[in-house]
Amino acid sequence: MILTVTLNLAVDVTYHIDRVRWHANNRVTSVGRRAGGKGVNVARVLHGLGREVVVSGLCGGSNGAVARAEMATGGLADAVVSVGGESRTSMVVVPDDGEVIGFSEPGPQVSDAEWRQFNHRYRELVAQADIVVLSGSLPPGVPTDAYAQLTGAARSAGVPVALDASGEALAQALDAGPELVKINAEELADHAPGTDALAGAEQLRREGAGDVVISSGPAGLLALTDGGAWRVAPPERVHGNPTGAGDAATAALVVGMLDGSPWPQRLVDAVALSAAAVHAPLAGSFDAPAYRRYRDEAVAHRLRGPRLESTKKHDGRRGATSP
Amino acid sequence: MILTVTLNLAVDVTYHIDRVRWHANNRVTSVGRRAGGKGVNVARVLHGLGREVVVSGLCGGSNGAVARAEMATGGLADAVVSVGGESRTSMVVVPDDGEVIGFSEPGPQVSDAEWRQFNHRYRELVAQADIVVLSGSLPPGVPTDAYAQLTGAARSAGVPVALDASGEALAQALDAGPELVKINAEELADHAPGTDALAGAEQLRREGAGDVVISSGPAGLLALTDGGAWRVAPPERVHGNPTGAGDAATAALVVGMLDGSPWPQRLVDAVALSAAAVHAPLAGSFDAPAYRRYRDEAVAHRLRGPRLESTKKHDGRRGATSP
Repeated sequence: MILTVTLNLAVDVTYHIDRVRWHANNRVTSVGRRAGGKGVNVARVLHGLGREVVVSGLCGGSNGAVARAEMATGGLADAVVSVGGESRTSMVVVPDDGEVIGFSEPGPQVSDAEWRQFNHRYRELVAQADIVVLSGSLPPGVPTDAYAQLTGAARSAGVPVALDASGEALAQALDAGPELVKINAEELADHAPGTDALAGAEQLRREGAGDVVISSGPAGLLALTDGGAWRVAPPERVHGNPTGAGDAATAALVVGMLDGSPWPQRLVDAVALSAAAVHAPLAGSFDAPAYRRYRDEAVAHRLRGPRLESTKKHDGRRGATSP
Repeated sequence: MILTVTLNLAVDVTYHIDRVRWHANNRVTSVGRRAGGKGVNVARVLHGLGREVVVSGLCGGSNGAVARAEMATGGLADAVVSVGGESRTSMVVVPDDGEVIGFSEPGPQVSDAEWRQFNHRYRELVAQADIVVLSGSLPPGVPTDAYAQLTGAARSAGVPVALDASGEALAQALDAGPELVKINAEELADHAPGTDALAGAEQLRREGAGDVVISSGPAGLLALTDGGAWRVAPPERVHGNPTGAGDAATAALVVGMLDGSPWPQRLVDAVALSAAAVHAPLAGSFDAPAYRRYRDEAVAHRLRGPRLESTKKHDGRRGATSP
């Protein structure tokens, strides 16, 4: 099974409105409310693709109860560890006429004991997993090297890791050698300021990442892998709710890792699933007919040959086995 | 005691952020989460002023439970009737650098049986009340003449009514003769398009309202009463969260009705309490030192003498006793 970890599990609230009126009260035309956080979105997409997936992470309070009830309704296997604090709400406002805006709360304060309890449960779950997906922000109280710890534990158990993180949590986790790092262009710019996507991806590999995929919204994906570099753009400009589009890409890449499919196909799947997620009103969902259509239309363009493999073997992977 | 009615009780969520970034995720620097809806805000302010107040209305689901728990923590007497649907969240985003934006959900579907149950409870509560405050939106399923029904029932029991409503709910309630109608300038413009505040207030009185107070944000209050007309502006431009400022004005006006204080004093209190509410980070709270300072500084300007009283006696009050 695929284990997804969402340490800062949330209730995702999506408001659809006609248009944004500032300094006024905006009537919400429809409200979506479901469990969220990047790992939950990834899990929901994987579940939608028919894959066996287990959601772990941390949640608590009345929002935690709402999220877990909704996961149960959605058929997601729940191995979440409860905390005493109140889980956050993550808000996205989608006006009919344009720009989406999101608001994210910091999340509950997690105690040392709760973090230890999670670690114990995580190790049990990893023992049954084929791959681990670590994604999203860390709630207050969880150590900034959390993803480094969790990546190290999975790799010690022989289970590959896909990581989608940012800031300090990303920086500290690279040395533990996650097999896949999937981040977006802003997160890359934050980690490696002043570089372009390819140079940034190279830096991530030098710092310990295995394969690297950078998403750039409508510009699509760039991948730097053992087998070379590719770029793939969505076949058309997609309008809708981009929240969770990156998580759909991660889900496709994880399926590609499990199935061992060739990189160009993984990337085409990822860009197609990501674009199909923009079509769906809520994060974690995707428009299945659009997914199939985009898969037929998207094309991966090779940027470099496999000579990079040696770079990785000598530079990138060194970090993976260091203490 | 003062009975406040909030038929569309909510969880009020207030997000403070540094600045709004569109097409991006905005980190929330602080989150306020409390029971809300106009009547709850009025009750909270009255409670803060040391008045005995009971909150009634309708709420349900996990948001309903969150709201009721928070009311208990805040010391608000709870006579709310439970419904099967999920109460709404009402969102306000307050950027440090400027314009506040609000998002309001429609609220739970209320059944006929639930509405009848509320009416029964309401009549019990009215029998113990000195004044009834009816304010805010109606959830789906509650009849649009709800405030007409509730105003009529209170007046039959000899209990005066303060009404803060808009649209169809306001239009239908006027004929029942609420002693005070307090609405804001936008709501007035919606009800009486193309009129200025004074002409609009005159129209409301002709349609059945007793005294009328129109709030215009930073421009302050206009009152048209049996004793004449007044205008009062806040003594200074106030920056902060304007959500609930109108409810603070309503609370002061209700206190003035109970105490029988002169209109200029009621209006000065209302504008001072309203401005002091803008200072407070969350709706329903006010900055007590600011309230005292503004009370000393604000001045009510008389616009008209008591000749209008006769207008009301002949036109306005006629509706109050019609069926």
